Amino acid sequence: VNTEFELLHKLKVKHSLNLIGDDCAVLPKDAVTDLVITADLLIQDIDFRLEWTAPELLGHKVLAVSLSDIAAMGGTPIWALMSIGVPPVLWENGFVERLFDGWHRLAAKYGVELVGGDMSRSDNVVVDSIAAGHVPKGGAIRRSGATAGDGIFIAGTIGAAAAGLSLLESGKRLAGATCSEEPLLIKQLQPTPQVDIAKSLQSHGVASAMIDISDGLSSDLRHLCRTSLVGATLRSDALPIDGDLRALFPPDQALELALHGGEDFALLFTGDAKKILDLDLPGVSLIGEVTSTVETIRLIQSGGDTILEPKGYRHF
Amino acid sequence: VNTEFELLHKLKVKHSLNLIGDDCAVLPKDAVTDLVITADLLIQDIDFRLEWTAPELLGHKVLAVSLSDIAAMGGTPIWALMSIGVPPVLWENGFVERLFDGWHRLAAKYGVELVGGDMSRSDNVVVDSIAAGHVPKGGAIRRSGATAGDGIFIAGTIGAAAAGLSLLESGKRLAGATCSEEPLLIKQLQPTPQVDIAKSLQSHGVASAMIDISDGLSSDLRHLCRTSLVGATLRSDALPIDGDLRALFPPDQALELALHGGEDFALLFTGDAKKILDLDLPGVSLIGEVTSTVETIRLIQSGGDTILEPKGYRHF
Repeated sequence: VNTEFELLHKLKVKHSLNLIGDDCAVLPKDAVTDLVITADLLIQDIDFRLEWTAPELLGHKVLAVSLSDIAAMGGTPIWALMSIGVPPVLWENGFVERLFDGWHRLAAKYGVELVGGDMSRSDNVVVDSIAAGHVPKGGAIRRSGATAGDGIFIAGTIGAAAAGLSLLESGKRLAGATCSEEPLLIKQLQPTPQVDIAKSLQSHGVASAMIDISDGLSSDLRHLCRTSLVGATLRSDALPIDGDLRALFPPDQALELALHGGEDFALLFTGDAKKILDLDLPGVSLIGEVTSTVETIRLIQSGGDTILEPKGYRHF
Repeated sequence: VNTEFELLHKLKVKHSLNLIGDDCAVLPKDAVTDLVITADLLIQDIDFRLEWTAPELLGHKVLAVSLSDIAAMGGTPIWALMSIGVPPVLWENGFVERLFDGWHRLAAKYGVELVGGDMSRSDNVVVDSIAAGHVPKGGAIRRSGATAGDGIFIAGTIGAAAAGLSLLESGKRLAGATCSEEPLLIKQLQPTPQVDIAKSLQSHGVASAMIDISDGLSSDLRHLCRTSLVGATLRSDALPIDGDLRALFPPDQALELALHGGEDFALLFTGDAKKILDLDLPGVSLIGEVTSTVETIRLIQSGGDTILEPKGYRHF
């Protein structure tokens, strides 16, 4: 039996799918612009639980997931499609309209226009979110451009969304959450895509490779390293572990969530460390260095170095 | 409770969705080309049954549905995305690979490249098919351009896919089908999009409005009439009822399937009757005339005229 990545690789080879394998496909638009496009399928009880969220938050999140993919290419989001399958009972109680409300609230913030989609009856809620963006021709930031010696950076913080998930799993809900729990629940249920910082990185031309942290740092850094044919050294004490997470969870658990927890939609990127630090971009942390030991990720900790194995989320 | 069309209308007004409501959205690409794009969500036991089909046929059909939407705008398909949710048991038995095989067999015929998508675990099979095409700038054929006096045409035949569905519902399967049943089952399970005739109509500039017959002639003609603010008169004896359907079903049942059955993916279009007939395009039939009686569709039959009410498929 194949893992998700093995099957994808098999299909790519078999059908010569050269545009697949990054956060977005890059397609020629016009003389000065490329189009980047991405699709994300979210399925009830796999990717979200209706008992844990609200239709407006779900609408926000499905678009946020796709905007994060656009951001990971250095793109500016422009338009989107959304296909929705819902059971009749939700059709009748206004669920779809509320989901669109949440979707549009986020879309309006970035000037994204809904141009299409489909609606169907289904047993469980299913949402496929497609978003497209523009990037200057040849300027998309791919996973494959990292070279040994580059600095490794994160834009945003990590671990909070996974902490929010663990709170939900332990029975906590937004209604009735304490002040220290609420921000973690919000970061899980209504994540913020790093659209502006991505555009800034693109326009400065400083990122050699980029990916969004959707599966978890250990998995997504592995993807970037595999595609770039490099390795990495990370400094544990440099990780931008979310402040709300550190306030509520013990340090070892916070580190675990930051290393392996997904859905923060922070951006992981590489590039000339000095140039990037000189830009003094808000919320950007230098966390390590690209090495030439292909796919090996070394984690430097006070207790001694370890090899970081991917433990992020996999569907199969 | 809203119907699908009422909710869509409500959302369009509420969120100013000006690009939604045709077979595809039309987006500017470059100085000479527009991009047309469409999404179709197909859900197990609503849109297809695994017991009735094969993974390769399903892969073919999900792409055919989207190519038909591109055709309905007069577009040339270029690239596509596909998101798939499957249960673990199908992941393990090669279902996904076979579905991709069927998809790519059709894609290769039209030079369509898979550029993205997503895969997820789910309880039922879910496929969201997104396809994009090119059309000369300003040249997309919309639903809204029909005017009184235009001829009404169909490219292709109608009724066969619905007949195939009724055979499947009565227990017939491809394995063990008779020679007269098989073509109807194939037209349901592996429909042919009218890509070439659509490009021909676009390049000749003769179609004033177009829609693909996916829900059924009575419903899709109604959509076209509503959008164009016109009515229609159809001649029952001019309908291109599928030959295999006529051979196997009694005339009244064949007519019923042709009028209301969906999924044939024939094209319904309007335009100057003489000009279109002069082109002598293969498989194109003149079936009636556009009138000024908004949304009223009159059916001329030997037994007397009737008003044709939409009875096509609706999810809600």
